[in-house]
Order: sequence, then structure tokens, then C-alpha cells
Amino acid sequence: MSVQVTDVCMLRPLEVPFRYLFGPGPSNVPPRVLAAGGRGIIGHLHPEMYEIMNDIKKGIQYAFQTQNNMTIAMSGSGHAAMECAVFNTVEPGESVLVAVNGIWGERVAEIAERMGANVHIMVKAPGGVFSNGEIEKALAKHKPVLFFLTHGESSAGLAHPVDGIGDLCRKHNTLFLVDTVASLGASPIFMDQQNIDILYTGSQKALNAPPGTAPISFNERACQKMFNRKTKPVSYLFDMAHLSNYWGNDGQPARLYHHTGPVSGFFSLRESLAILAEKGLEESWRHHREVAGYLWKGLEDMGLKLFIQNKDLRLPSVTTIAIPEGYNWREMLQYIMKHHNMEMTGGLGPSTGMVSVRGMLKF
Amino acid sequence: MSVQVTDVCMLRPLEVPFRYLFGPGPSNVPPRVLAAGGRGIIGHLHPEMYEIMNDIKKGIQYAFQTQNNMTIAMSGSGHAAMECAVFNTVEPGESVLVAVNGIWGERVAEIAERMGANVHIMVKAPGGVFSNGEIEKALAKHKPVLFFLTHGESSAGLAHPVDGIGDLCRKHNTLFLVDTVASLGASPIFMDQQNIDILYTGSQKALNAPPGTAPISFNERACQKMFNRKTKPVSYLFDMAHLSNYWGNDGQPARLYHHTGPVSGFFSLRESLAILAEKGLEESWRHHREVAGYLWKGLEDMGLKLFIQNKDLRLPSVTTIAIPEGYNWREMLQYIMKHHNMEMTGGLGPSTGMVSVRGMLKF
Repeated sequence: MSVQVTDVCMLRPLEVPFRYLFGPGPSNVPPRVLAAGGRGIIGHLHPEMYEIMNDIKKGIQYAFQTQNNMTIAMSGSGHAAMECAVFNTVEPGESVLVAVNGIWGERVAEIAERMGANVHIMVKAPGGVFSNGEIEKALAKHKPVLFFLTHGESSAGLAHPVDGIGDLCRKHNTLFLVDTVASLGASPIFMDQQNIDILYTGSQKALNAPPGTAPISFNERACQKMFNRKTKPVSYLFDMAHLSNYWGNDGQPARLYHHTGPVSGFFSLRESLAILAEKGLEESWRHHREVAGYLWKGLEDMGLKLFIQNKDLRLPSVTTIAIPEGYNWREMLQYIMKHHNMEMTGGLGPSTGMVSVRGMLKF
Repeated sequence: MSVQVTDVCMLRPLEVPFRYLFGPGPSNVPPRVLAAGGRGIIGHLHPEMYEIMNDIKKGIQYAFQTQNNMTIAMSGSGHAAMECAVFNTVEPGESVLVAVNGIWGERVAEIAERMGANVHIMVKAPGGVFSNGEIEKALAKHKPVLFFLTHGESSAGLAHPVDGIGDLCRKHNTLFLVDTVASLGASPIFMDQQNIDILYTGSQKALNAPPGTAPISFNERACQKMFNRKTKPVSYLFDMAHLSNYWGNDGQPARLYHHTGPVSGFFSLRESLAILAEKGLEESWRHHREVAGYLWKGLEDMGLKLFIQNKDLRLPSVTTIAIPEGYNWREMLQYIMKHHNMEMTGGLGPSTGMVSVRGMLKF
């Protein structure tokens, strides 16, 4: 057989411009984290790799404020964690309740529908807040095995209150699943003290690592549900029975080959978690709040209106600006990118037409 | 609420020893590819990122020897490509035929079973070769929509012949899915000329990039099947309708947000594909064959027996050695690692008890 020649584009060098990543994510990656990700790799099943994974687990436990043994990093982005959470804790036909007030709830509802769950949604306009009363009413009505809420609704710029919801979920025998992709490290979350059963985040937001890994943690209640199911999760790759062994969480003496983890991605995730541990969570939260406050004031002084009016509900990591009438947001964002190398982004899903901007460069 | 302190392990620096990665994968990553992966990142939806993804597509088309438009890299390892191929081309209840002669067939059978396919397997001992006559008989009997075969059966060290099977699959209205994770770049494959309908590989084997991305390509026949299905694929993350748009393959003017791709992983994948394009496929195949021949002779001169006796069926990238009687393979591998920093590995799944070794360091 005859070999077709290569396209000439592959003989050109890789070109990567510098950009200030002020969109909701990914964020600019600090040199220390880039250097960790650029280290020569070792095998995914070497003892030294297990040590690095053990460290990552400790780093996630700190960042999540949890003692959960069942804590790992997914080999994938936040969507991999989303699918992992739903695929493992829900069986086809079971009831799932999803709070939709932006794009992330829409995504989880779609994921749960595809795997055959009986999905109920509570809908508010982007940035809307669900009261605990509303949530309890829906829990009582739909008796879901899982309730999903986004803590950091980046498409609206909202930090949704979480207090008390975990208790309501326990009362109604529901697992409480919280998405902190956009908020972890920027806005306080206490997985154990807030009775959150399943929590996940992404590497590429306030953690400042490249995209491609996603910390996730399951508490004992969640483990009871997911390890006592009648059917196998629909994905072999995201099956926590296997991932738990790969991360050394199942008490077995040997970790068996399941899939090949992103070795370089784990190096950079460990480094970013180490930076958070050195800095301290409270300082990270304070710093985000301080810089966000400075940004908010500057924007308001320019006459711009922020989309989330109540300061206490604003996400410190992602600020959303209402587009002034008569302006085209696409044109503005293109202008800023072209003249200042700065990324700001439009809304996503239900919030298309707003813009997001990060409050800080964190290195 | 009170903040728990961090574990002291996170205050220690990252430690990564140097290892010669002579196992079946991942491979040592050349400095050029590490440097590409360590570049400062840009946004996953920036025009410059689309250019890099376009280049990757061209690089995969060359490596696969295909003109298929529907060519992308998965944001995940080879298992992500495996699930993507099965989830998209098969609907629940449809018949799937899997050739099992090592671990990879077992994995695909499990993946297809979980998503509700009607799975039939053809089984041989590790390293066994299926004749085209046997395959046609099974195609006629089970009338599968998909037939899976591993080209590079790394758990046995086998390069399975592929010629003629694509034609049989067309005759029986079956899609031909081939796994080249362990073989691509080392052992010749011609996707278009061999009538392979779906082909995938991993980044971390002969391509020498870090694990975490997985090239995959679908031809027009495969697209006809997967884009005319009655049900949605069970995974939103692996849905080719969305991935196709993300990779600019669906003819739509805009690429919409689906998930956040592993930006650094795409940088390093592009660099590894560029090295292959510069070197040329024929030279890469020749080089692997030459070095493997040298290794085989050296091993046989030492009195060791290779597991695959027919030289023409040996995988040039992964050589398997039959364990001499009276020796403990685990102890031998530990000795080699301890004294020479060299990774060799045991078998996987059905071939546990054999050992694998790569023939070369490719930089």
C-alpha cells in the first residue's frame, strides 16, 4: 500500500500566543505548575506515582474540607466528574432532582436523562436563588435519590448558598451533589460540615492548573448508595468501583490496571493543590474576595451594572456584567482581545448575552 | 465554620524519579514534547486553539492514513476513545461482535454490555490469531452492527493481521472498529485502504506524548450510522454530535462550548504528531522493526523464548517474553526496576504471568 504524504501544516512549529485569561476558565497557569506538568513522566502504576496520587487525595481533602476516604481526581475535565457522580449514584429509573439556574444544571439534567434517570428540574432565571423551603418542597414531592445544585454558577456569576440543604437532603433520604468547578478555592465550602454527599471541581479555575483533571469526593452515605447498586454504572471508565481501587481507596493490597491516568496532569494538579495548601484556604478566600471587591467597585465606577446585585451572592472568582443597552457584546470582547490580549467571555446557555470576567490573576 | 489544616505531605516538593519506561506504555516523553506541554496555556475556545486542533486533525489523518473529515482527539486516554466508539455507533439491543485474544477485547465487550448491546465474543488464547474465514462465519451468524479487533494486542505482543477484514465487514453491513493504541506509528496501518471504519489510538505509546489524549477517526459509513440513531448516546461528554462541532467537523460556522479540552495535552499531542510527520511514517515503521529485531535477537541469544513465535505477527513496539520455568516474574521486574531504573511489566488480564518490554527509546 502507498503512504499518503503529511499536510504541510504539521511541519510548522507550534504557535501559542500569550493571553490574559480573564474568562471564567481556564485560568493562566503559574510557572511552578507549568514546570511540574513539564517534568519527565513515570509510569501510571509506579509506587512513586501512587505517592503523588496519595498527596493529591490529601490536597483535595483539604481544599474540600473533608475527611472522606473516597476522594480522587478524575482523568478528565469537570464534565467527567459530573458524569461520574451521576453514573455511579443513580440507577436507571430512579428519581433525580436538578436545580437549574444556568448552564450547569441543564448539563446535569441532560446527563441524568441519557442514563435513564427520572429527571425533575426546578428552574429559575440565570442567577436565581432557590430557597431552602422551595428545595424541601421539591424533595418531598419527587423523592429523588440525588439532588444537584451548582455552588459556583459561573454562567451567571452566582455563589449559591448551601447551608442547611445537606440536612434537608438527609431528612428526605437524598444524596446532595454540589458543583464547585468555578468556586473552589475562591468561595468558602465545607464539604463535611455542610453535609454535602458528593462534591467535585475542575483543575483549571481557581486551582490554576491546566484543564484535564477534576477532583471529586464521595462521603460514606454516597458510598453506601453507589456500592450497593443492582446494575453496573453505564461507563466502565467512570466506574467508581474501579477508580476507587486505582486511587488506593478500597482497602485492597494491590492497585490493578484500569485506565492510564494523565501523569503530567496529575503532576500539575498536585503542584496547584500544594500552592493552595501553602497559601491556606482562608487566605485564598480572603484574597479572592478582596480583589473581586476592587474589580466590582472599578466596574461600577465606570457606570457598568453587575448582573448579580446582592454582593453576598456574587461569585468572587467570576464577575458577570450586564451588557449596557445598544452595545454588542461580541464586538466588545473581540476589541478587548485584539487590543489588550485579554480574554473575557460571553454567557453560556441561558445566560448568553452577558459577559464574564475574572477578578484577578492569581500568580 | 472552622477550617481543618492541611496534611503536611502537601508542604513537601513534588518528587519524580527518572525511569526508563520500557513497559507497554506510557513511554518516556522527548524534551520537545515535554516543552510543548509546558507552554503557557490559552483558552480552549480561542481561534489559535482551533488552529492547533486543526493541525492535530491533519496530523492524525496522516498517522492513520485517512482522509476522514470526522477525525478528532478525545480528551481522555484510550479507554475514552473505546467508549466513544461504542457509545456512538451502537444503540441498546444491537448486536456487537468482539474478538477477544487479550485484555482489550475483554474491555470492549464489557463496555458494550454496560450500554445494553447484545454482545457476542470470539475467544482465542492470548496472542491467538483469528482467520478471515472464522471472522466471516461469526459476522454471518451474529449480524453485528460493529466488529471489534485489536491491531496491537500489547498484552500478548501480537500485531494482528487486518487485511481483508474491512471488506468482509462491508459485505455483512458491519462497522469495523480497530484498536491501534499499542501499534500506531510502529506497525503499518492504512485506515482508508484497509477499509477500517473506526480507528483509535493513544497519545502515550509510539507517539511518545503524555497520556491523556486519544486520536480517533470515523469514516463516512460510521458517520451514517452514528448520526442517524434513534437514541442519544448514553454519554454527553463522549457524544460525537457535540465533539464533532468542537473539532470543527460538522460544517457549522461556530464551535459551541461542550467541555474544556486538555489544552496542554493538545499542545504535546500536536508536537508528537509533528515529530512523526517530520520523521515520516515509513521511517518510523522501519526504525521500530529494526530495533525490535535487534532486541528479539539479543533476548533469544540469552536463551529466552519470545511469546509470539511467528516473527511476522510480533508487535514491533511491545515484545513479550515467556517466563522461564522456575522464575518469579514479579521478583525479576522488581530487580530490574531497583537496579537499573528500568520499567518492564507483567501481562494484563488473560496474559498475566508473561512480561512485556519495549524495543526502544525513541528519542
